[in-house]
Amino acid sequence: MNVRVRGRTRHFRTVSFDVRTNAVCLIDQRLLPHRFRQVRPATVAATAAAIRDMTVRGAGAIGATAAYGLAQGARAFRGSDLRRFEAHVDAAFARLRDARPTAVDPVNAMLAVREAMASGNTVPERQRLAVEAATRFAEENVADCRAIGEHGADLIRHGATVLTHCNAGWLAFVDIGSATAPLYAAQARGCRFTVLCDETRPRCQGASLTAWELAQEGIDHRVIADNAAGWLMQQGKIDLVIVGADRVLARTGEVANKIGTYTKAVLARRHGIPFYVAIPESTLDFHLASGRDIPIEERGEEEVLGAWGARSGGHRAYVRIANPSSRALNPGFDVTPPDLITGIITPRGILRPNDLRTLPRCR
Amino acid sequence: MNVRVRGRTRHFRTVSFDVRTNAVCLIDQRLLPHRFRQVRPATVAATAAAIRDMTVRGAGAIGATAAYGLAQGARAFRGSDLRRFEAHVDAAFARLRDARPTAVDPVNAMLAVREAMASGNTVPERQRLAVEAATRFAEENVADCRAIGEHGADLIRHGATVLTHCNAGWLAFVDIGSATAPLYAAQARGCRFTVLCDETRPRCQGASLTAWELAQEGIDHRVIADNAAGWLMQQGKIDLVIVGADRVLARTGEVANKIGTYTKAVLARRHGIPFYVAIPESTLDFHLASGRDIPIEERGEEEVLGAWGARSGGHRAYVRIANPSSRALNPGFDVTPPDLITGIITPRGILRPNDLRTLPRCR
Repeated sequence: MNVRVRGRTRHFRTVSFDVRTNAVCLIDQRLLPHRFRQVRPATVAATAAAIRDMTVRGAGAIGATAAYGLAQGARAFRGSDLRRFEAHVDAAFARLRDARPTAVDPVNAMLAVREAMASGNTVPERQRLAVEAATRFAEENVADCRAIGEHGADLIRHGATVLTHCNAGWLAFVDIGSATAPLYAAQARGCRFTVLCDETRPRCQGASLTAWELAQEGIDHRVIADNAAGWLMQQGKIDLVIVGADRVLARTGEVANKIGTYTKAVLARRHGIPFYVAIPESTLDFHLASGRDIPIEERGEEEVLGAWGARSGGHRAYVRIANPSSRALNPGFDVTPPDLITGIITPRGILRPNDLRTLPRCR
Repeated sequence: MNVRVRGRTRHFRTVSFDVRTNAVCLIDQRLLPHRFRQVRPATVAATAAAIRDMTVRGAGAIGATAAYGLAQGARAFRGSDLRRFEAHVDAAFARLRDARPTAVDPVNAMLAVREAMASGNTVPERQRLAVEAATRFAEENVADCRAIGEHGADLIRHGATVLTHCNAGWLAFVDIGSATAPLYAAQARGCRFTVLCDETRPRCQGASLTAWELAQEGIDHRVIADNAAGWLMQQGKIDLVIVGADRVLARTGEVANKIGTYTKAVLARRHGIPFYVAIPESTLDFHLASGRDIPIEERGEEEVLGAWGARSGGHRAYVRIANPSSRALNPGFDVTPPDLITGIITPRGILRPNDLRTLPRCR
């Protein structure tokens, strides 16, 4: 999508790949909204670190990053022994997967890359196929998001107020986004509406990233504390909720997403407000039989005990908010059961959670 | 309660009055948990500003502050004309009441002071009666909190995990607190339990004030993001919720409290977890017929768009978290309906919300 950099509007993708330098190109999301900078991790270790430390985050974006990272790892191999090559790729796969255990996009993306590589008979052939497959994953991600937008835009009425949680915007994908795609598509149709962005503590991706995206596109929005959504629903001030997901179980319709998503779903149900989850098919998990089996990442306590932001002058700073001797619990994600979900907005259309199991597997 | 200051443990009250200098003595809660300092507003204007800017906050604490502030205003009057004196006191009353419109404690406390003053026949007599009545309000507040603690402690079982929201601790009262009183009483009985403190964005009173209080008293606790409570309830990790209130309607049982309270009540109901509200009788409003009539303060956007904390080195700093060009909505309070409330812990015992109307009016 568009970014205004030094007074000029330019188009960027969140994730791309530079074949010449074998580097993954990422927007450093830890610096947004205060500074726009691209980084270029040049090794699998650096790419995995970029996923782990949230330089890149969001289902589709880390999927594409992992796919490109696997191709990057494959291309870094020197030699012609296929067995040693495959062991090398295995290690890269594990390293990239373990960087964000709750998400399924990286695994799906890397499985697609591996499958494509299998038809190559030599190391150079498999290296070339890896880049092609990773690029295909990224392009499909963009096309998927565009289709999600067209289906989801039908849900947004003129004058509506839409609640979002966290950032499932273009920064969370290769471009366009999942939960934001219907907003961008509705805007393009001339529909005018307001978006409320949950700030999404502890990392505040809603206040920093989603608000930044919407501002770049000129969409009317307000940031709210996560605590405010319930009251605003009770006051009739929210018409629709659209969120993204880190993993959706095709067999049960359960949705793992950023901590606080479940709370918003419970509140929406109490107030009879439609609650939608927007995902490309790469976010579907066809294997797990229960949400209880989804690994929920317990993240560092410092995220809850303080906050990152910009001081006057724009310098990035961390402030400690909590009592200095106190500790925190910080589950990063939660699981929302299908009975709280009105529909899943997919590139194939809007499905009920229970109908996901009828979808053909992506691969 | 106790505070460790420079290695020594001393007892402090949140609010007191210095007759000699006609100053209200307050703990500056904007500096906690990073710095402990008392301030002494010496005029009604300064006392009202201390309520408005959150130097002092919390139902009972601002009630006592307003009561002492009214006495302070009465004592600042020079002259003997009773009519002019009463007009002067009226102005002080309005100024202190308007500093926090959602709360009812300041109004109840000041009405008690005015009623006591009425029996005086001269200005000096009414000035003396004002200080006596304000002191009585403060002492009753302490006794009320102690009684709340004894009733509420019966609800806490050994090994339980209790969720709190915001700070209804001793810092929010003259001493002991309302929602924390059962915790302190249970601890004194030898019961061992864990407290989860919602951080309570946007001002983070849970992370900063409640966590600080509990740490001073050696009570096991963890800070959580407001987003985490729903997931922890779903996982069976919360046994009981106790919150305070800014205003409870005796006629309907509706509870106005810090934004996010309603959300926790909705979540508790979904999971069959008992949800209690602890209040002294000064928090009861016998007049309003509906929660819709409670004025909900819309606070400054900067609270949501950033956060205050301490930088390394301990210096207090504000960081901007949100996208610089974005705006916020910041309702400061919400209203929880009685059907979500298991019981109201009062100094007279634990009542159902619908039984509040049978209580004799405090005054």
